[in-house]
Amino acid sequence: MKGKRTDLGGAACGIARALEVVGDWWSLLLVREAFHGQQRFSDFEKRLGIARNILSKRLKKMIEEDIFRTEPDRDGRSRRYILTEKGEDLYVLLIALWQWGEEHCFETGEPGHVLVDRIGGRPLPRMRPLSANGKVVRPRDFQLSAREKPPVAAE
Amino acid sequence: MKGKRTDLGGAACGIARALEVVGDWWSLLLVREAFHGQQRFSDFEKRLGIARNILSKRLKKMIEEDIFRTEPDRDGRSRRYILTEKGEDLYVLLIALWQWGEEHCFETGEPGHVLVDRIGGRPLPRMRPLSANGKVVRPRDFQLSAREKPPVAAE
Repeated sequence: MKGKRTDLGGAACGIARALEVVGDWWSLLLVREAFHGQQRFSDFEKRLGIARNILSKRLKKMIEEDIFRTEPDRDGRSRRYILTEKGEDLYVLLIALWQWGEEHCFETGEPGHVLVDRIGGRPLPRMRPLSANGKVVRPRDFQLSAREKPPVAAE
Repeated sequence: MKGKRTDLGGAACGIARALEVVGDWWSLLLVREAFHGQQRFSDFEKRLGIARNILSKRLKKMIEEDIFRTEPDRDGRSRRYILTEKGEDLYVLLIALWQWGEEHCFETGEPGHVLVDRIGGRPLPRMRPLSANGKVVRPRDFQLSAREKPPVAAE
């Protein structure tokens, strides 16, 4: 993906790299639909009102990027699009988007939905980054540091 | 913003609304640069290698959307662009993007950076949504529920 757009000093920037993969509107809405249980081209098309050629191009790119994989559908003629583990990991991003949108893009009292815990049914509290010792990290409380090798293991 | 694109049944979707505001590459990179301390048109231009007319259009839109506000610069001729509270709240989204990019868009051992806690200097663990009782919410553990009025207060 490097060199496709201005480099941004961003070869080393996780944000720039993530945006190169999911930085357009449709990609994330397709992932959202997949979390809603959609798996078929025709259902994505219908629910998003997206032109077939654009949908086809998007899905192709997202398969190349290992966000979706495909399986033959039961009808033997078409394919189902299923999130990979990398794709499923985008749920953190979707929740961050959802909660920011909920807080900042709705009028008070406007009807909408909330994200709830599937088991308890209670609304999810605002997701916040935590420091290694479990404190909430505020907007000005983080910075970048050169990564030592080997990279720090996740979690 | 409604009606600008296909509705998506998405008038009520926080993700769709958030993407209408920040769903293009440049918007989030501008917010990233603001977190890096950039405040001037010329610095955004230089650091992102973005065309002046596009930058100007992006910043204008983001001021309308209340992501940035402006202040006169000390030189009396130009303006400084400063994140509003709504803009600063995007840090959760940037961290989600960063961590996903870090995990999935780098080769093992490739040089990069990590997000660290500004005070302790230790890497931030992967951000995860938590349920109301503090358990980590996994990709299939959440769903949408109609919001009751008045809307549930954040946190």
